[in-house]
Amino acid sequence: MQGYIDLNYKLGEDDIIASFYLEPAGGLSLERASEYIAAESSIGTWTDIKTMKPEITGKLKPSIFEIDKEKNEIKIAYPSKLFELGNMPQILSSVAGNIFGMRSVKNLRLLDLIFPGSIVKSFKGPRFGINEIRKILKVRDRPLVGTIIKPKLGLNTEDHARVAYDSWMGGCDLVKDDENLTNQDFNPFGDRIIKTLEMRDRAEEETGEKKIYIPNITAETGEMIRRAEFVRENGCEYVMIDIVTAGFSAVQSLREEDLDLVIHAHRAMHAAFTRNKKHGISMLVLAKLSRIIGVDQLHIGTAVGKMEGPKEEVIGIKNAITQECFDLKPVFPVCSGGLHPGLVPELVEILGRDIIIQMGGGIHGHPGGTRDGALAARESINAVMQEIPLEEYAKDYEELREALEKWGK
Amino acid sequence: MQGYIDLNYKLGEDDIIASFYLEPAGGLSLERASEYIAAESSIGTWTDIKTMKPEITGKLKPSIFEIDKEKNEIKIAYPSKLFELGNMPQILSSVAGNIFGMRSVKNLRLLDLIFPGSIVKSFKGPRFGINEIRKILKVRDRPLVGTIIKPKLGLNTEDHARVAYDSWMGGCDLVKDDENLTNQDFNPFGDRIIKTLEMRDRAEEETGEKKIYIPNITAETGEMIRRAEFVRENGCEYVMIDIVTAGFSAVQSLREEDLDLVIHAHRAMHAAFTRNKKHGISMLVLAKLSRIIGVDQLHIGTAVGKMEGPKEEVIGIKNAITQECFDLKPVFPVCSGGLHPGLVPELVEILGRDIIIQMGGGIHGHPGGTRDGALAARESINAVMQEIPLEEYAKDYEELREALEKWGK
Repeated sequence: MQGYIDLNYKLGEDDIIASFYLEPAGGLSLERASEYIAAESSIGTWTDIKTMKPEITGKLKPSIFEIDKEKNEIKIAYPSKLFELGNMPQILSSVAGNIFGMRSVKNLRLLDLIFPGSIVKSFKGPRFGINEIRKILKVRDRPLVGTIIKPKLGLNTEDHARVAYDSWMGGCDLVKDDENLTNQDFNPFGDRIIKTLEMRDRAEEETGEKKIYIPNITAETGEMIRRAEFVRENGCEYVMIDIVTAGFSAVQSLREEDLDLVIHAHRAMHAAFTRNKKHGISMLVLAKLSRIIGVDQLHIGTAVGKMEGPKEEVIGIKNAITQECFDLKPVFPVCSGGLHPGLVPELVEILGRDIIIQMGGGIHGHPGGTRDGALAARESINAVMQEIPLEEYAKDYEELREALEKWGK
Repeated sequence: MQGYIDLNYKLGEDDIIASFYLEPAGGLSLERASEYIAAESSIGTWTDIKTMKPEITGKLKPSIFEIDKEKNEIKIAYPSKLFELGNMPQILSSVAGNIFGMRSVKNLRLLDLIFPGSIVKSFKGPRFGINEIRKILKVRDRPLVGTIIKPKLGLNTEDHARVAYDSWMGGCDLVKDDENLTNQDFNPFGDRIIKTLEMRDRAEEETGEKKIYIPNITAETGEMIRRAEFVRENGCEYVMIDIVTAGFSAVQSLREEDLDLVIHAHRAMHAAFTRNKKHGISMLVLAKLSRIIGVDQLHIGTAVGKMEGPKEEVIGIKNAITQECFDLKPVFPVCSGGLHPGLVPELVEILGRDIIIQMGGGIHGHPGGTRDGALAARESINAVMQEIPLEEYAKDYEELREALEKWGK
């Protein structure tokens, strides 16, 4: 059971490095609990076994190379031979599997994972990424503005398409389905795609801007792929998948189909395991995995608004999905949840211009309705790009003024 | 935003009922926080929107019909029209989606979900279930005994097959791969299936008993299905999938392929969101979803041994996956994690005979090695079936005696 601690371990270039927050249970020492974690997440189990051989431990044993008793943090290096290339569920079943349920730990949180090139390159990574998406949209350097059709559920197909049209006409670049709209009776999938894309064409013609519709294709994998193909055949460039409720196998399948579709990743349900700061898996880890598999856009939080997520964490996630990492393209960070025009300057100050700003209620809740809401959203971005304070800019733009009056700034 | 509470609501026979533990944040009342939860998990958002219509709220609005201030528990009924039939990710993106990350809640746990027949019947459910599995094994009423090849990783293919053989020869009914063994260089998938099944044939011939090998096919969905087909073509009746790390879309895909394979569900990573009693999703919910989708065997915990999970919870899960529920077949409960022969009587007393008792370390850690370990495991079950105390039975069975000496009883 013991022998995994090696504080002088020299990191191999093919190692996966995992950082954990760890609170041992039942009076165990941090060292001892670390040994249990390292064993269960690799080659060991709760008792010595007769089938273990020195060759196996020699080649495959992970090393606990850092133990920080003040922070209750440990770092473990896993030889890459433990893992199957190109198989994300397998990697997680190792380094994020049984260990969360062990009696020897009271709390355990996977804080970070650092992958070697061999593993990263065994996945496809984002097909498009920020630069290609900007080319599709023909928007060089401002934040993109998106909306989610609201109400989340209940609009019939015609109304859905009309709300999308109003959003584009007001100035939205992207219009997406909500995370729980897929193929319900009140708004069936196929019909929705066709009718909404008709409205997109009209909005493009009338505005002269490229407009994007992002349909939610989340379903059983086979059905999801069929939906993606249908979307593509009908001239749409994007799909959205709920990455957590669909799961890693399905996200990989979607990416590996190479359908020439930008993949927008919604993270609904993530906070069931990312939110508690002492237990579970960090959003940073989920974001890194999503990039490696190959989503192009990912919800990362807002640091402002209705959803939880402290500023530093959101910045860390943004950095992780955009900074250099072997040949991976940068993922477009999506800020969504409780946003409205008044929050745009702060958001851009914190996260920069390479973000997608999504407002749902913050557009469709505008006193003047969806189109005015979209106008206000776009105006808030224009103000920021021109470095003019919102309140000053709002003097000339009534929609923005109304938004600021309703939700503040 | 308000108007979801209706304590006199009369439950519709097509409603999905969700029970939550809820701690509001920032001084919000339980009622107010409940409203936010009900809104975000159905048709609402953080602000009033202009696109909402009375017809929509009339048809689709959920009802908070129970608020227990002492327990901080609420119950919400969702009209089934909110959901897509046969789409588990969509259901979760609604009732277990964004809500865990909302700022208006401090802690939120989905305790239970009760599904109407319309939803349950839109999934396939278990193809085999307990009775069909017992027919395949030709074991009428004793608990089945299984093992996991150990070490988890590192054995080469020949050694893997030999350890499986020894396990079967000692008395195991089922032998399975561990959750993180899929297709690594040291033990490639295809070769492993072929060599291990050769040993299974030999063990069947020599013991006259039906023997089962359960290969782990967890991977990207397409690859997973190819592996399942390969397994079937080579004369194996079972596959195993890591349901949480693979995800719900993939589990559904596997079941919907109708491959005539018994599906063994491993739950690695579940404790990242099931363990905290105040936040996340209960194992009970995960178990119910797995049954509805259609796994045949599911890890439910042990109530004894290395993994966390209190006795009452494990019993509740066992009941949920075996009791009558529309036409769903009962799932075979699998007890695994830190088990050894000395724990068998207590386990059977708590959970009954319709369980699969899996011992990994508790077999391969036996002082006499794998075969003696498997003998001891089977002897412990024989003792229980004959209602003889283990220590008495062990007088005539050396392997059992050695196991009890090593691990206690």
